[in-house]
Formats: sequence, C-alpha cells, structure tokens
Amino acid sequence: MKIALDAMGSENAPREEVKGAAQASREQGVEVVLVGRRAAIEAEMERQPLKGARLSIVEADQVVAFSDHPARVVRDKQDSSIVVGTHLVQRGEASALVSAGHSGAVMAAALFILGCIDGVERPALSYLFTTAQNTVLLLDVGANVDCKPIFLMQFAAMGSVYMERVFNLERPRVGLLSNGEEATKGNTLVRETLRRLKESDLNFVGSIEGQDITKGIVDVVVTDGFTGNVVLKAGEGLGEMVLHLLQRELAHKPYLYIPAFFLRPTLRAIVRSLDYSEQGGVPLLGVNGNVVVAHGRSSEKAIKNAILMAKRAQERGVLEAMRHGITHTS
Amino acid sequence: MKIALDAMGSENAPREEVKGAAQASREQGVEVVLVGRRAAIEAEMERQPLKGARLSIVEADQVVAFSDHPARVVRDKQDSSIVVGTHLVQRGEASALVSAGHSGAVMAAALFILGCIDGVERPALSYLFTTAQNTVLLLDVGANVDCKPIFLMQFAAMGSVYMERVFNLERPRVGLLSNGEEATKGNTLVRETLRRLKESDLNFVGSIEGQDITKGIVDVVVTDGFTGNVVLKAGEGLGEMVLHLLQRELAHKPYLYIPAFFLRPTLRAIVRSLDYSEQGGVPLLGVNGNVVVAHGRSSEKAIKNAILMAKRAQERGVLEAMRHGITHTS
Repeated sequence: MKIALDAMGSENAPREEVKGAAQASREQGVEVVLVGRRAAIEAEMERQPLKGARLSIVEADQVVAFSDHPARVVRDKQDSSIVVGTHLVQRGEASALVSAGHSGAVMAAALFILGCIDGVERPALSYLFTTAQNTVLLLDVGANVDCKPIFLMQFAAMGSVYMERVFNLERPRVGLLSNGEEATKGNTLVRETLRRLKESDLNFVGSIEGQDITKGIVDVVVTDGFTGNVVLKAGEGLGEMVLHLLQRELAHKPYLYIPAFFLRPTLRAIVRSLDYSEQGGVPLLGVNGNVVVAHGRSSEKAIKNAILMAKRAQERGVLEAMRHGITHTS
Repeated sequence: MKIALDAMGSENAPREEVKGAAQASREQGVEVVLVGRRAAIEAEMERQPLKGARLSIVEADQVVAFSDHPARVVRDKQDSSIVVGTHLVQRGEASALVSAGHSGAVMAAALFILGCIDGVERPALSYLFTTAQNTVLLLDVGANVDCKPIFLMQFAAMGSVYMERVFNLERPRVGLLSNGEEATKGNTLVRETLRRLKESDLNFVGSIEGQDITKGIVDVVVTDGFTGNVVLKAGEGLGEMVLHLLQRELAHKPYLYIPAFFLRPTLRAIVRSLDYSEQGGVPLLGVNGNVVVAHGRSSEKAIKNAILMAKRAQERGVLEAMRHGITHTS
C-alpha cells in the first residue's frame, strides 16, 4: 500500500515527516510517498537512518503558507504538496493522503479535487480518542462551523460506519451532544437533529451531555464543527492545567515530592493522550478519498500514527462502506 | 445581610441546605433565610448543631419538581420555595437568593419577578473557576442556547463588571470563544460578535481557542449558552477520566501503588476543583437581583460557597455597577 505524505506540512517539516514516514514504513510495511521539495526532502533523508523503510519522493515545488486562503491554494498553488498529494489520491496513485499542513487548504483540496461521496453534503473532521472505557469518535471538530440538521445526520451515519469498520463494532452507539438529556434541551439545530436521528436506523442513544463524552456510553459523538473544535481544544488545555495545579500543590507539600517524582511520567502520558497534536491525525470523512489531517505541531510519532490511521481505514474498506452506508441511511 | 436560600432545592434537601446555611452563617456572619416547608426544615435543624448560626424560616409549601415546566412554575406554583424566595429579593427582604433547585425554574422566576436590568436582553449563567494562573468567568453556560451578537456583547460587558467588582481587576481581559484566533474563524454568531466587540470599550483581547480558557490570558470568556454548557460539563468528565486512566495504569504498575496512595488526595482535590457541583454556585447575571444557581447535587460545602458568592457580590455592589455598566457600554 502506498500512502502519500505532505512532506512540507508540519512546523518542523520535512524533518518530522521523514522520520515519521520511515518509522511507519518499517513497522507496518507501507510505502510512503513524500510529496514536496525534492532537495529539502533528500537533504533530510540523508540525515536519518532509513534502513528498511520504503520511501519515495514526488516533487511539488510550492509550499502552502498558513496565511494562504484555502480555496485559492487549489487554484493558485497547483504545484503545492497539498494539491499534488491530493491528485495522487484522485488518480489512484496513492491510497491516502496525510498532511500536517494548512488544514483549511487540505480540506479545500479534498473537496475540489476528490469531491464528496455521493449524497454527502459536507465532509467532517473526526477526532478519535481513547477514554478509560472505550474509543470514541467525535465529529465534526472543525470542518463546518455553521451546520444544518442534515449535516449532523450524515456525520452520525459516517461516524457510525467508521467505527463499525475500523473497530469492528456491530452497531456503534451514537450520541448527539447537547446541554441536557431531555428532548426540550439543545439549541435549534440540536432539537431538530434529535427528532430526525430518533427516526433513523442508526443505533442512536439520544442526547448526551459534555460529561458523558468520556463515560464509555457512546462510540460516536455528533456535534457541529464549532462546538466540537472548542471541546477538543478545551480538553487539551484542561489536561495541562491539571499538571500545573499539581505542580503548584507540590510546592506547598514537600512530602509529596517523591511520590510525585515517580508518578509524573504516568500522569504526563495520560495528559498527553488528551492532546490531539500527539495523537496522530483526524480523518476527513465524507470525501471521495482517504484523507487524514494531522496537527501542525505534529511530532514524528504523530506523523507515524496518522499514516497508520490512514492505512487501517484503507485496509478496513472504510471508504467503500461509507459510499454504501450514506446512500443507505440518508 | 440576609440571604434567602431555597431549602428544598438540592437532591438531598433540606439536609445539605441547613448544614451549608449554618456554616455560612457562622463563618461569615450572614443571616440565612431558609425558604421551604417549615416542618421539614425544622426537623433537619433539630438534627444539626446550629450554635452561632443565624437562621430563620420563611414558609413555602410547594416544591418544584424537575419535570415541571419552568415558566409554568411561576404561574402555577406561587407558593414554591423558588417563587417565594425570589419575591423576598424583589421586595428587598433578602439581599440575594441561592437555589440548588430546578435551574430553569429559578431563571424563569428571576426573569418574571425581578426582570432584566434595563437594557439587558438576556441574563446569563456565569461559571467562575480557578486555573493555575487566575480566576476566570465563563458565560453563558446554559441560560441561552440560541444567541444573537447583542446577547454576547452584553455577556462580555456583564462579565467584565462582575470580575472588576468581585476580584478588583482594573480592566478585566475579555476573550470570545472561537475555533481559531483569526477573524475569519468562528461561526456566523462569533464572527459578527467579534467585529462588534473590537469596537467596544471593553478590554477585549480577541478570539480565543478552547485551550486558552485555562491559560491565564483572559479573565472573562464569552460564549453562547450551548457551547458554554457543553465545555463546562466536558471539563468535569475529563477530570474524572484522568483519575480513571491513572487507576488503570496503576493496575499494570504495582511499583507506583505507594506513590499513588500519597498523591491521590491531592489529585482528587484538583479534579474536584473542575467539578462545578463542588464549586458552589453560578451567578445569574443581568437580572434585577442577586441570584445564584447551585448544582442539584450540591454538598453542604457547595451550598455554603454559593451563599458566600452571593454575599460577596452584594458587598461589592455588583448589581449597582452592572446597572451602570450595561447602560454605559451598550
């Protein structure tokens, strides 16, 4: 399997990309196509131990800046790593694209070049995370800040297909994020979506509240991209805050210094598991291709995880199932 | 100072109410007027040590159920503790009302009986919490699920006045919660509000993201009541999840058992500080009276804290400042 990786995407590109690609290739046998400036990629490749990794380069001379307008990238930067990489997927020369670059531009390129799956109104960024009980997919986390009920209905269907395929769940439990469990709660969007989700053939458990996201009672959490994005990032901040508060407490409690010394690595790992820049990537569901958006601050480990995420979705036939599933449920 | 307390509000009413009222009165010298069924309150008072506490009872025979429709409570349950307590504030017989009862009914009663401050379109539930750096007021956390830009403008002004008065901040820093810092980010509501907040005379720092809430860079976080509620509750769930994940890690790492034993009380206290049912109350800003909504699962400590919160707002003249501030800024 060949996976295209935008080699110019992250803040430390192409270093983290080359290292992450080499790791993913060695560990999982995928071939990674590094898309970007050949000279920069080759220079980095010379610095890294690449034994056993299958890497190739596809030249793309332009680099997308964070100040670029997403839609204009597709038109004006046709030779950028994002646009060239998306074309590789579109022509079937790569099974997936992973990019830690300008996420707006990645989404615009996917939308214009790959298009949406038939019947899908809007693609959704889908954040996969692990609670103490299960793995949960939260979507949308930022692709659509203003949503209509039909978008949320389709996010529910797409999330359901993804979790069914990738995690072998028979009928993933879908919850709609709201400010209360009662049908009278929720904003206008949520109340209308709730009514329609109840009539759908998804395994819909109803409205859930913020604290329920991490309780293991749902596999898919549906929300608009504004709320999803805020919740995702607030969670990241909160984990950091717990560590800060602990640090501050310790200053007053010297007798806890030794226990804290031993426990800190474990706590740090837990907090890091809340940080989406460490987790790998966020699949863009609903487009006609396998696209994973990684964080701009991705480490090599995050890049590797994003590649593995793309590989797994490909192996499990998520795209085909989604093409069938959406036509089926909407 | 006399503060009215809905004695029939919480899940364990009137026990937690009587205990919390006694503590608040003893520690801070306030007189607490317990509003509710005299027989039940007196029975509880006999069970508790009340020495040094100034408590009185105002009879209210009806109890509001969680299934009651908020607006109908005001009309049909005129003798409920919530309605009677609100009238005490309206007639000036109490400086504030604290209730852990049906929050929708408390808001409806405040709106109908006390009314909004002149010029205020909608009151807001305002959550006060402590980060590692500072104290932050997040509003709205649930009073208004569908908002207009003018509501958010006024939340910003009200939050600013509250923090200025209660925490002696000269010009509280106000942030607008969004999915990115750039002016192009945000949903329709946020983009329009952003434009208007920039032109206001508040100390507006701009759009902030979820992870910025806890970073100490703002004193007031403005958002719609749907998003605010979801974020608040998600934070609560996340704290619990950190403890669960730690528990699970420990099962594999017996050598960490002893350090964890020592550190657990501190960690639990930190996580509890994220739980708004422990914190006390949530001031309802924008109505013509001092109203604090407490969590339905309030402990005696939470009740005590809610009473102290009401007392402090009263002493600092929040209501008067708000009457002036809103007219001034809007």
